[in-house]
Amino acid sequence: MKNNDKYFMKLAIKEAKKANNEVFPNPKVGCLIVKDGKVVSKGFHKRFGGRHAEQVAIDNLPQNITNATMYVTLEPCAHKGKTAPCIDLINPSIINRVVISSLDPNPSASGGINAILNKKILVTKNVCSIKSKKINQRFFTYHEKKRPYIIIKAALTLDGFIAESNGVSKWITNEKSRQSVHFLRSNCDAILIGNKTAIIDNPSLDSHGTGKDPIPVIIDRSKSLKKSLKIFKKNPIILSRDILNNKPMDNVKIILDELYKRNIQSVLVEGGGFTITHFLDSGFFDELHLYYAPKFLGSGLSIFNTIKSIKDSSNLVLKKVDKFNSDFRVIYKRKY
Amino acid sequence: MKNNDKYFMKLAIKEAKKANNEVFPNPKVGCLIVKDGKVVSKGFHKRFGGRHAEQVAIDNLPQNITNATMYVTLEPCAHKGKTAPCIDLINPSIINRVVISSLDPNPSASGGINAILNKKILVTKNVCSIKSKKINQRFFTYHEKKRPYIIIKAALTLDGFIAESNGVSKWITNEKSRQSVHFLRSNCDAILIGNKTAIIDNPSLDSHGTGKDPIPVIIDRSKSLKKSLKIFKKNPIILSRDILNNKPMDNVKIILDELYKRNIQSVLVEGGGFTITHFLDSGFFDELHLYYAPKFLGSGLSIFNTIKSIKDSSNLVLKKVDKFNSDFRVIYKRKY
Repeated sequence: MKNNDKYFMKLAIKEAKKANNEVFPNPKVGCLIVKDGKVVSKGFHKRFGGRHAEQVAIDNLPQNITNATMYVTLEPCAHKGKTAPCIDLINPSIINRVVISSLDPNPSASGGINAILNKKILVTKNVCSIKSKKINQRFFTYHEKKRPYIIIKAALTLDGFIAESNGVSKWITNEKSRQSVHFLRSNCDAILIGNKTAIIDNPSLDSHGTGKDPIPVIIDRSKSLKKSLKIFKKNPIILSRDILNNKPMDNVKIILDELYKRNIQSVLVEGGGFTITHFLDSGFFDELHLYYAPKFLGSGLSIFNTIKSIKDSSNLVLKKVDKFNSDFRVIYKRKY
Repeated sequence: MKNNDKYFMKLAIKEAKKANNEVFPNPKVGCLIVKDGKVVSKGFHKRFGGRHAEQVAIDNLPQNITNATMYVTLEPCAHKGKTAPCIDLINPSIINRVVISSLDPNPSASGGINAILNKKILVTKNVCSIKSKKINQRFFTYHEKKRPYIIIKAALTLDGFIAESNGVSKWITNEKSRQSVHFLRSNCDAILIGNKTAIIDNPSLDSHGTGKDPIPVIIDRSKSLKKSLKIFKKNPIILSRDILNNKPMDNVKIILDELYKRNIQSVLVEGGGFTITHFLDSGFFDELHLYYAPKFLGSGLSIFNTIKSIKDSSNLVLKKVDKFNSDFRVIYKRKY
């Protein structure tokens, strides 16, 4: 039976992947119940506040099942949140073994394994845990690294400029690229910009109706931003000298600590060049999304403002390239 | 029968595509002979100096065929070059109709249609001619525009630099990207650089054994390049004040006229930034191959040195994106 653990856990991961961003800030979780080598029930966590995967699978169980095995992609929770603790639902007269992929990194939800063992139910853990962590990178980054998952996004000309010398950047990329950015925003908890970008672009930073709007976060050390800017309609988080110091590189860590405290699991860093440079330089980022448009400017504002050598490594791994008509987007992940 | 012309011409085009760059400077040509709706023979032009497609197809014909139709992607030649004129091989007792896709733009080879009509053979022309021209873009550009087909190639950092401020550019891109450049070079008749690139990089500009080496062409107005540079081992074409004037933009046209006179059908413009800028700015280019590596320099030599606005159109159409490990290459074509 144990030889089949990987097989069934992969099916449970497939189940977890059916969820979309409605589950945030919860992780995506899938659950399978298997009896005599056959899947008799399955479920996934669909939306924040809704039934957990384990509950869905248990609710879907046929009558009179005993000695079954539960496969679950994340350690069942031991705390009462929006729903009852999942461990209370696991009945030893039905389930006699629980196979778990990743342990729950969230201290307020973990402890599930011990509670299950106390019920005299067998537990097998860490089955396909690399795979199951991948579907919840933001959740694991937030709890394990105690900072949000960081995506840097920029729109550039082919010669690397994010704006004309006068600061004008509307519109470097085409409609299709911008739609993709709106979708990206709808998948992030927060969106961060510097105060120059707030003043020059006066952006709304929303998802344009594609989905959920991220919380705007503005770096404004001197608290000088005018309340008439569009961004103030969105109840932004303003980060000022109250918590920031005058060293931008130190501030990256201070900002991330603040966002962690505010339960922000993912942040999209949208600019401008100095803000992006500080994040790139500090190494505090997980993904880099660069949108290029078929234009040359010859001069303008740069995406990166520290002088480096060709020999300096960037630790970037190319994950994906997409065409948006004659624009394209590359996604790099940072290698740790 | 005529309704099938497109069908059989597409098969002839497929046949033509079997050729590789061994045919240069000749075009790729495919030929089919059809009798009663069935292909009875086919052939393609394999290498420069070798049998033409028509001759291969005729040589492959079974005995005793009469009243057959020949489909050929390019007007059969009327001149004696490396081989006998193709029109002499077309026997009206075997072939009673010839269907031609594109007319031959090469004045020294054209005239085939009239010669065929004089034999009392029916002729249908311009069947799928857009498709058949596409497989010989360099050949048609050379003869119709009276200049080589121009490919601009550059290797850049993500922030758009082609070298550090001191001119050092070795190596921005990775081994796999450079191999792809060697292959690109092996497919071009000539490779053009400015004299600064010749001095700073001292490149060999060859295909590194991938295939044929292109002829190096160096812009050296003042004739000041030292003969000890690697490039002089390759018998380069040096373009100096003997033909160039002191306006770089005028020189683009002068250079292209010179290359046309020298029967160069394709030229790869490899840099540096000023040479590339003049070609981009003049609009004299057909393809743009940009190789990007996952690095940021923050400062350095730019690919483009004229100041433009975001609103300026570049007329570039994205054709292809390829990943080379963590580098990537984009190919744009210029829209006319």
